[in-house]
Amino acid sequence: MKKILILNGPNLNLLGKREKEIYGDSDFEHFFEQLKNDFSNIELYYYQSNVEGELINKLQEVGFEYDGVIFNAGGYTHTSVAISDSVAAISTPVVEVHISNVYDREKYRHTSLMAKNCKGIITGFGFNSYRLALTSF
Amino acid sequence: MKKILILNGPNLNLLGKREKEIYGDSDFEHFFEQLKNDFSNIELYYYQSNVEGELINKLQEVGFEYDGVIFNAGGYTHTSVAISDSVAAISTPVVEVHISNVYDREKYRHTSLMAKNCKGIITGFGFNSYRLALTSF
Amino acid sequence: MKKILILNGPNLNLLGKREKEIYGDSDFEHFFEQLKNDFSNIELYYYQSNVEGELINKLQEVGFEYDGVIFNAGGYTHTSVAISDSVAAISTPVVEVHISNVYDREKYRHTSLMAKNCKGIITGFGFNSYRLALTSF
Amino acid sequence: MKKILILNGPNLNLLGKREKEIYGDSDFEHFFEQLKNDFSNIELYYYQSNVEGELINKLQEVGFEYDGVIFNAGGYTHTSVAISDSVAAISTPVVEVHISNVYDREKYRHTSLMAKNCKGIITGFGFNSYRLALTSF
Amino acid sequence: MKKILILNGPNLNLLGKREKEIYGDSDFEHFFEQLKNDFSNIELYYYQSNVEGELINKLQEVGFEYDGVIFNAGGYTHTSVAISDSVAAISTPVVEVHISNVYDREKYRHTSLMAKNCKGIITGFGFNSYRLALTSF
Amino acid sequence: MKKILILNGPNLNLLGKREKEIYGDSDFEHFFEQLKNDFSNIELYYYQSNVEGELINKLQEVGFEYDGVIFNAGGYTHTSVAISDSVAAISTPVVEVHISNVYDREKYRHTSLMAKNCKGIITGFGFNSYRLALTSF
Amino acid sequence: MKKILILNGPNLNLLGKREKEIYGDSDFEHFFEQLKNDFSNIELYYYQSNVEGELINKLQEVGFEYDGVIFNAGGYTHTSVAISDSVAAISTPVVEVHISNVYDREKYRHTSLMAKNCKGIITGFGFNSYRLALTSF
Amino acid sequence: MKKILILNGPNLNLLGKREKEIYGDSDFEHFFEQLKNDFSNIELYYYQSNVEGELINKLQEVGFEYDGVIFNAGGYTHTSVAISDSVAAISTPVVEVHISNVYDREKYRHTSLMAKNCKGIITGFGFNSYRLALTSF
Amino acid sequence: MKKILILNGPNLNLLGKREKEIYGDSDFEHFFEQLKNDFSNIELYYYQSNVEGELINKLQEVGFEYDGVIFNAGGYTHTSVAISDSVAAISTPVVEVHISNVYDREKYRHTSLMAKNCKGIITGFGFNSYRLALTSF
Amino acid sequence: MKKILILNGPNLNLLGKREKEIYGDSDFEHFFEQLKNDFSNIELYYYQSNVEGELINKLQEVGFEYDGVIFNAGGYTHTSVAISDSVAAISTPVVEVHISNVYDREKYRHTSLMAKNCKGIITGFGFNSYRLALTSF
Amino acid sequence: MKKILILNGPNLNLLGKREKEIYGDSDFEHFFEQLKNDFSNIELYYYQSNVEGELINKLQEVGFEYDGVIFNAGGYTHTSVAISDSVAAISTPVVEVHISNVYDREKYRHTSLMAKNCKGIITGFGFNSYRLALTSF
Amino acid sequence: MKKILILNGPNLNLLGKREKEIYGDSDFEHFFEQLKNDFSNIELYYYQSNVEGELINKLQEVGFEYDGVIFNAGGYTHTSVAISDSVAAISTPVVEVHISNVYDREKYRHTSLMAKNCKGIITGFGFNSYRLALTSF
Repeated sequence: MKKILILNGPNLNLLGKREKEIYGDSDFEHFFEQLKNDFSNIELYYYQSNVEGELINKLQEVGFEYDGVIFNAGGYTHTSVAISDSVAAISTPVVEVHISNVYDREKYRHTSLMAKNCKGIITGFGFNSYRLALTSF
Repeated sequence: MKKILILNGPNLNLLGKREKEIYGDSDFEHFFEQLKNDFSNIELYYYQSNVEGELINKLQEVGFEYDGVIFNAGGYTHTSVAISDSVAAISTPVVEVHISNVYDREKYRHTSLMAKNCKGIITGFGFNSYRLALTSF
Repeated sequence: MKKILILNGPNLNLLGKREKEIYGDSDFEHFFEQLKNDFSNIELYYYQSNVEGELINKLQEVGFEYDGVIFNAGGYTHTSVAISDSVAAISTPVVEVHISNVYDREKYRHTSLMAKNCKGIITGFGFNSYRLALTSF
Repeated sequence: MKKILILNGPNLNLLGKREKEIYGDSDFEHFFEQLKNDFSNIELYYYQSNVEGELINKLQEVGFEYDGVIFNAGGYTHTSVAISDSVAAISTPVVEVHISNVYDREKYRHTSLMAKNCKGIITGFGFNSYRLALTSF
Repeated sequence: MKKILILNGPNLNLLGKREKEIYGDSDFEHFFEQLKNDFSNIELYYYQSNVEGELINKLQEVGFEYDGVIFNAGGYTHTSVAISDSVAAISTPVVEVHISNVYDREKYRHTSLMAKNCKGIITGFGFNSYRLALTSF
Repeated sequence: MKKILILNGPNLNLLGKREKEIYGDSDFEHFFEQLKNDFSNIELYYYQSNVEGELINKLQEVGFEYDGVIFNAGGYTHTSVAISDSVAAISTPVVEVHISNVYDREKYRHTSLMAKNCKGIITGFGFNSYRLALTSF
Repeated sequence: MKKILILNGPNLNLLGKREKEIYGDSDFEHFFEQLKNDFSNIELYYYQSNVEGELINKLQEVGFEYDGVIFNAGGYTHTSVAISDSVAAISTPVVEVHISNVYDREKYRHTSLMAKNCKGIITGFGFNSYRLALTSF
Repeated sequence: MKKILILNGPNLNLLGKREKEIYGDSDFEHFFEQLKNDFSNIELYYYQSNVEGELINKLQEVGFEYDGVIFNAGGYTHTSVAISDSVAAISTPVVEVHISNVYDREKYRHTSLMAKNCKGIITGFGFNSYRLALTSF
Repeated sequence: MKKILILNGPNLNLLGKREKEIYGDSDFEHFFEQLKNDFSNIELYYYQSNVEGELINKLQEVGFEYDGVIFNAGGYTHTSVAISDSVAAISTPVVEVHISNVYDREKYRHTSLMAKNCKGIITGFGFNSYRLALTSF
Repeated sequence: MKKILILNGPNLNLLGKREKEIYGDSDFEHFFEQLKNDFSNIELYYYQSNVEGELINKLQEVGFEYDGVIFNAGGYTHTSVAISDSVAAISTPVVEVHISNVYDREKYRHTSLMAKNCKGIITGFGFNSYRLALTSF
Repeated sequence: MKKILILNGPNLNLLGKREKEIYGDSDFEHFFEQLKNDFSNIELYYYQSNVEGELINKLQEVGFEYDGVIFNAGGYTHTSVAISDSVAAISTPVVEVHISNVYDREKYRHTSLMAKNCKGIITGFGFNSYRLALTSF
Repeated sequence: MKKILILNGPNLNLLGKREKEIYGDSDFEHFFEQLKNDFSNIELYYYQSNVEGELINKLQEVGFEYDGVIFNAGGYTHTSVAISDSVAAISTPVVEVHISNVYDREKYRHTSLMAKNCKGIITGFGFNSYRLALTSF
């Protein structure tokens, strides 16, 4: 059975509480339970941290063993060379996802430092972005 | 039954012939037949053109009637304000797809003028990008 | 009697259908009939295309014979060196018009490659921009 | 009867004396007399100043009372946030005009800070730019 | 009684030890005691961390409950999209403060990614910046 | 008794009349009377001009004698080297204030040429910005 | 016998009619007849279009079969990623030519998106650029 | 006898009072008396203003009659298109002077908008810059 | 005996596992043992963290007491103002090292925010960069 | 008989020894002998120097007397205003040549400061670039 | 008696021969003879070279002994860090001169790398620039 | 015995005479004698030139024979494509060294065109940079 980690970066623990006009009003924990139901043939894991380095720690921990990482790095997407290096360094393929359409928001959200090191990028489908990413493995 | 158009821009008619290290070696026609088999509950259409304005013509033709467009605008993705305006003008949702990971190629491929007007963007999964896009409708 | 061509670029055939908060809700055909009534001393022609090269073809066709062209190049205004070259190459004077105030929209709409080759530019008066342009001949 | 102010910025008092190959050789006072004759149904006023702040003073003075301002801000067009703010702050609509085709001159003349706050912009028709602007009210 | 958190970012624990010509030579702990004395009608809290994500954790912890945060994000002010997102996500108003006049230092200190999401910004008054911020609540 | 000048730049005489969603709807004269009441131990003066050079004249007039200037230079904040030089040239400390959060508005409002020469900067607290500035002296 | 296509882009059908101080006053058809005479050992073809996509169509049509293409893409040289991609996709070598010295004209003519994918580039020799290109095969 | 105007812009009335390490400690009035003595064969005039538009007024007043203007535009040198236009519009030759070496100061002082319209530029010789300028007529 | 800390930033714990064509295939722990042998007259310490703030914590901990820090900040080199501030704040001299020749890699690796605050920089000698750095104390 | 100088800049004396994958493996001396054989009706000269100023000396020496210069300025192409001025100053026409396709290499090789002053530019044909240049005279 | 060197850079040996519309038609040798006559109280020397390094050699040779250098570095003005360093390294004051008004020419001539290290800069007075420079010592 | 060349660029012959606060006050000749003593097992050579092309000549002369070059290219580091090409062309490894910390000086000193072609780079250790470079061979 494939092992896939869903990895969420800063402020994504506030989903459902924060800026609902952008991110919708259901929280990620409920959504994750649904996902586990719907993809019962995959061993699904979930980790969230606001700390850049802890995301790197997690990537390194699973990155030579799991079958895939679905990674929404939030604000670190646009600024972190360290995370991008980490994605390049591990052997597990990483799919970058975004809930909102970042290209319809501030200019500094249009750039992803890690995208070039990812297997693919899925942007703008709401929580469905995670679902599509799962389908890609 | 949903009606979805797959719309391919310039040079995508050469898939399978051209730069196989980037785009793989199967051609799009075969792939399209597979898609129709696999998504038999969707009325699938396909159109390809090298002419920017003909892509706009097609978008306008289906854009108030179909249920979705899956659009790989090729080189026009990065340069065409006219196509981006067209995507914004129609009411049918458009999903932008790319076969290759454009963020791992030349810098001018990192910018999409139309992305902000799309329902979502799927990049880098090979032909699978189209398949994921279909799943999103 | 003077011969004047009104030349409309991509997506302007959707006027009245598309983004009404920007472009108003009457279509161009009705407006053109009014114009012909109001300027009965001018031989008025109308051509629209979504294809960059067809706009060039038209400019070349009338550009050594008509008395004027009123040209709304839509999205090609900001990106087309080829159209700008065409305006420079013909002897008929061209007036650039825009329906909306492009300076109050996205930054990439603030630049016109063809403006420098035009007789004048009229921006932001709604359909009235065409009327003012006609008055300028 | 509508009240319209024609407002001219720095160096436009030299029209007819200065750089005739760009601006023509008639002075603005004669032209203004003609305008008053030709638009006898409009109460026309004229004010010129080389001082940025005096142009703002004038805009504020008429800006909640007159029916329109036709404004050639000369060199301040490209550099004055303060004038642009002033145009935004008043309720009278302002039409920006330029005598010469600024897009065929130095690059720093291609940018107008105030355009986005104007009702419309008319550029490059010589003194006729003012006449077209009047027609727009 | 209002609850206000003073939140200090990286290297601000060195105040009084480090670069005294820029930051003065008293340490923050003493200053905080004074503040508590002087603003006895406010419940004052203090937290400092060098870790970007811990600052986000703290913002999230207090950000739906306290009455205000006075935030000196130090070097993260200029680089952290994640912190800026966090400030936007919480409901507690945040006042950005700086001890030194950042506009008189290196160019990269002139930009604050989080300023647009703050209630206000106070810069350059030394420790007094915190005092003024407190007065603003 | 300390002598402090409040100096307001272009269009700030329209406060209460103009763009109320940004600046609120009370006018500055009433606010100034309140300030004089509340800070009765300070000799408070007020001057407003739309003319860049008159603001410089005023700065020079009080700049070697008063105890402080609270300066909202409006649109000149972002464009005037001359005003910035003037602030540097005088010996009276100047506090830069802004009513609105300029960092949440157009990009050209994010830069202040004079900030580096000021004692401090206070931004975004509405009329309260002036009050905080007074407290800083 | 080698088969070579001369491919001319937008406005080059106006050669001899247009801007003679830049392009000279003979038309391309006469020149092409001369070329056929002078290079009688080469099977020479000629195609011109103002439509970007038709140039791509032509490149694809001959691009796996002819021995060479001599390509003056006119204004599309500087803006078309799609044409550049097309040149890269075909196996026939392409020589980029320009009649005028583009480096002595507007700045936006100094950049060629397709040059990197060409066999070589020949610029500035008038019609002789085509002749030199032929010699290179 | 030649008539020459020395025209000084903003803050130059503070010379001798302000930033003595940059500008020296003698005031301009004394220096002007010396100049009149030393160049007794020239009719010398002096005018200073902090107001951009008043400098333009002065240039226009003398600009078709005097034999030369020696112009230190201070901070307006780097920002004023209007003054630059004024220098271009008049027939009297203008020599731009600077007391300090502007190239050894802030970057925004390295650009002069008016230099291209001047007869010559003299920079960095202290008050001697004016003396050299006088010698140039 | 001198006390020197070797401080390694994000992903450097993967040395020997990751991207061996860039970083070689021996791990840092073995190398560190060698170093301790070879520089037996120095008290050598080693610390690695993926967390930006923990690197700052460590710098502050040793930065007023040790005789030197050899710091490879990995991806944080190019993005962290906070780390750069930390290097400036401490009194212990820091030598910046890089294993690979960063100037032969992506453009964003060519900039080091902390270099200006370091005693020296050693780049591109493989693990030998650390050895040379040790020699420099 | 025409006199033509082939002028080679820095490092071109290493042809055949250096970076053979870019420049091929034959040296220039042999090639020059062939050229003299093949173009026996032209008086051919050859000069190479690594010194920027010596290339200028040579251009000046032959530049009012020879019938043409074929100039590969190597690395100076992209950086030397002095050489570009020299090409402009002489009356002999200069043809710029490059062996490799500089547009397929580093970005800084895409700019030629001297191209605008040349009769024409030939790029990317290997040693054949020189041969084509000779044919152009 | 003061010793002053006039130092001319690349292509200035062509004065009188080259581009006479920019530089006039007398040569520098004649002008130098006049200068020696007119400034008989100064020991005047002259040196010209097209080689950047020879100009540096000369600066070093006289730079700790002469009383002044008048330096027209031609094209090296805009590109040479090495010459700028040399001017900074010597103790003899250097006056930068230009014959033409460089600000009315190409943009890359508007920047001088050495200006900040010079005693003063004199630009645009023709040969008279040298004369004014001499007067400044 | 290894043969190593120390190659110094422009103005480095002034070491000990020039700007002692940056470069220290001992001259390079004495230092070189020490080096020869301390590294008696290496055949050490020294060459200095102010002429860019002579540095290239030297690199070519030793570049296929010596075991290493320690190269301080001074001002040419930041501007010379030709020197960078030369370092790439030779087979002898080159170590780039700088005496001062160039990252703490002017911005244009932060870029090295040749770094990417070097074996390694050592910056900021004073004369010790050369010593460390020697140790690296």
